[in-house]
Amino acid sequence: MPQAPIRTAVGIVGAGPAGLMLSHLLARAGIDSVVVDHRTRAEIEGTSRAGILEADNVRLLTDSGVSDRVRRDGHPHDGIALRFGGESHRVDFRTLVGESVWLYPQTDVFTDLADARARDEGDVRFGVSDTQVVDLTTESPGILFTDADGVAREIRCDILVGADGSRGVCRSTVPEAARTHFFREYPYAWFGVLVEAPPSAPELVYTHSERGFALISQRTESVQRMYFQCDPDEDPAAWPDDRIWGELQARVRGADGFTLKEGPVTDRSVLRFRSFVCEPMRYGNMLLAGDAAHTVPPTGAKGLNLALADVRLLAEALERALVKGDRTALDEYGPRALRRVWRAQHFSYWMTAMLHRAPGTTDFDVRRQLGELAAVVDSTAGSTYLAEAYTGWSERRAGYGRGVQDAWQ
Amino acid sequence: MPQAPIRTAVGIVGAGPAGLMLSHLLARAGIDSVVVDHRTRAEIEGTSRAGILEADNVRLLTDSGVSDRVRRDGHPHDGIALRFGGESHRVDFRTLVGESVWLYPQTDVFTDLADARARDEGDVRFGVSDTQVVDLTTESPGILFTDADGVAREIRCDILVGADGSRGVCRSTVPEAARTHFFREYPYAWFGVLVEAPPSAPELVYTHSERGFALISQRTESVQRMYFQCDPDEDPAAWPDDRIWGELQARVRGADGFTLKEGPVTDRSVLRFRSFVCEPMRYGNMLLAGDAAHTVPPTGAKGLNLALADVRLLAEALERALVKGDRTALDEYGPRALRRVWRAQHFSYWMTAMLHRAPGTTDFDVRRQLGELAAVVDSTAGSTYLAEAYTGWSERRAGYGRGVQDAWQ
Repeated sequence: MPQAPIRTAVGIVGAGPAGLMLSHLLARAGIDSVVVDHRTRAEIEGTSRAGILEADNVRLLTDSGVSDRVRRDGHPHDGIALRFGGESHRVDFRTLVGESVWLYPQTDVFTDLADARARDEGDVRFGVSDTQVVDLTTESPGILFTDADGVAREIRCDILVGADGSRGVCRSTVPEAARTHFFREYPYAWFGVLVEAPPSAPELVYTHSERGFALISQRTESVQRMYFQCDPDEDPAAWPDDRIWGELQARVRGADGFTLKEGPVTDRSVLRFRSFVCEPMRYGNMLLAGDAAHTVPPTGAKGLNLALADVRLLAEALERALVKGDRTALDEYGPRALRRVWRAQHFSYWMTAMLHRAPGTTDFDVRRQLGELAAVVDSTAGSTYLAEAYTGWSERRAGYGRGVQDAWQ
Repeated sequence: MPQAPIRTAVGIVGAGPAGLMLSHLLARAGIDSVVVDHRTRAEIEGTSRAGILEADNVRLLTDSGVSDRVRRDGHPHDGIALRFGGESHRVDFRTLVGESVWLYPQTDVFTDLADARARDEGDVRFGVSDTQVVDLTTESPGILFTDADGVAREIRCDILVGADGSRGVCRSTVPEAARTHFFREYPYAWFGVLVEAPPSAPELVYTHSERGFALISQRTESVQRMYFQCDPDEDPAAWPDDRIWGELQARVRGADGFTLKEGPVTDRSVLRFRSFVCEPMRYGNMLLAGDAAHTVPPTGAKGLNLALADVRLLAEALERALVKGDRTALDEYGPRALRRVWRAQHFSYWMTAMLHRAPGTTDFDVRRQLGELAAVVDSTAGSTYLAEAYTGWSERRAGYGRGVQDAWQ
């Protein structure tokens, strides 16, 4: 006998940080939601992802009552180092813009959110399959899926939210004529490693070298995350520990004697990336959030932060629409979100272009990159411009947001 | 009967603004020089060139006693407009960095300098031919030439300066093994026009549009200079007045109703450009200055300004070397000059890349450009970073120059 449909106000596809944070914020506003994800909770927790949170998102986690673990277990970073010509130059976020970012892995953000949803008896269904979204342009869009016990189920909602990532079902269900894709491919990738070693630096080190980009980041006192630019078709198996350390050390080497503390490489993978935006972020009564609508190169640490920024706007829009009956809020969500998305796309592109060595790069290009890096670190304004973007254009900071209307709206 | 060699301390090839300003500054320091140029004075004065002077260079002209005509006939510009999405956004240099730039055509700078050299009885020889530079690695380098009367002449000097532009004889005489060229070609050019019309705007308008870049600039109350991005192989003859105005109007059109005041087009030409740097800026006892060593795209208005900045450093270096006997000054000149050159190369590239539409530009690229432009004008720091560069990193302004050692030195 078929199960009765599950009725809820907001049906959410995707139980990553975006979907769970939205469900949490909606619950606080008295709005019912159900979240489904084809992955199990263990699968999501087993995926190593980005680790930098903007201050506004740290405040979101704590002030909305998710958890204050980020403040206990996370590490505030008051700046980054831009390393070029064999020397490190600190960009001091706290001095320049009065904000920090926090080193706190996405996995921990997910765990905090999943725990908070469980604590508050939120309806989150992991490990579902055969997910489809239907009737998107009607007053009662639906999510069809098979639950973890193999039973066919159906959710009917007022508003459906696609927070199911860059390869999810929600965006791809939108007819092609109703969406425009903007994208840029990059002719290189990142070789990412997890290593068992103490930290080599107190903050992230973004490194420009003749051999290409490298990023030295931290995870814990005994585990570090590092990356170096590689060919998109690079084979991780061709890189034994010695070769990885040789390449990383060569890229960070300089007259100041900076060297990396080495240890066993416990994970190695090639991360391809591209810039992508889908417009609009709405189709009928389905709204997209996070990676389902846009992805960025990892260089600016903006992926997770953009997803949470979307959700801040989306929770507010849904409250206006569903509680106060103001349906224009649904129209305004996408354009408001895209304002930040395109700034972040530019910032991610800029950091990438400034620090990477593209195929066909000439000596002129390298000298110009070095000229730009010198100009940025040598100018309080240049460093501040970078710091504003890296820390996420915090709402608490003055000096920008003069109210320019975005040109594409 | 052969003429006796002309003896001087500094032999200068090129009587453009760089060569004449150097000769003027050397005379003030009691150092003798002779300048030669293959062009006649009338030929140089008949060439229409750039028209924006940084404040430091306005001060150089007036404080060194060349002329105060720039302050009487020039026009201080306290900012520029960045126009995109059909709206203009002012970048207010005076508010942001406390400096202005001056609209004052290069031809007038040249005239002031040529008059000053004549007034002070400087030795400047226009209209020479068959110029060669010889014996550059000896203690007595020479300039061989045929004077305006057809007589073969020879200058012998302690230091020879090549200020003879991007296609001059000085740089090309340096053996290829002793110089490295850095360059970038651009897949577009500028279509430049002089028009008889009143000004359409009080300051320069740098315009991003779907049709490509346009720059609205001023010359006098009745003559204006305008440019629009075109194909490098564009034929000026294929552009009657109507077509030019149609293209310019289409590029600046916007919701604010801004339109250009039209009038007869009196000059039209296609300006190709590229980024170029020659290193080092010294070979033996010959030093290069200005376009002989580097050229920039015109977008940042840096060409003339870089030449004058070179000369400020070069005059000081020559005084140290020739009057105080400190020959290390000759070693230091190039690296000091290149510090500014590479910042200016980056700035010129940045302004060009942010505002032009390259062949193969995707919709993503256009959206990202608009995201960047919005970020720049929306951020005090971003606008300041741009203003610092546009006004020339004035020595009087604090907030940069934290003393970063350039990475390539």
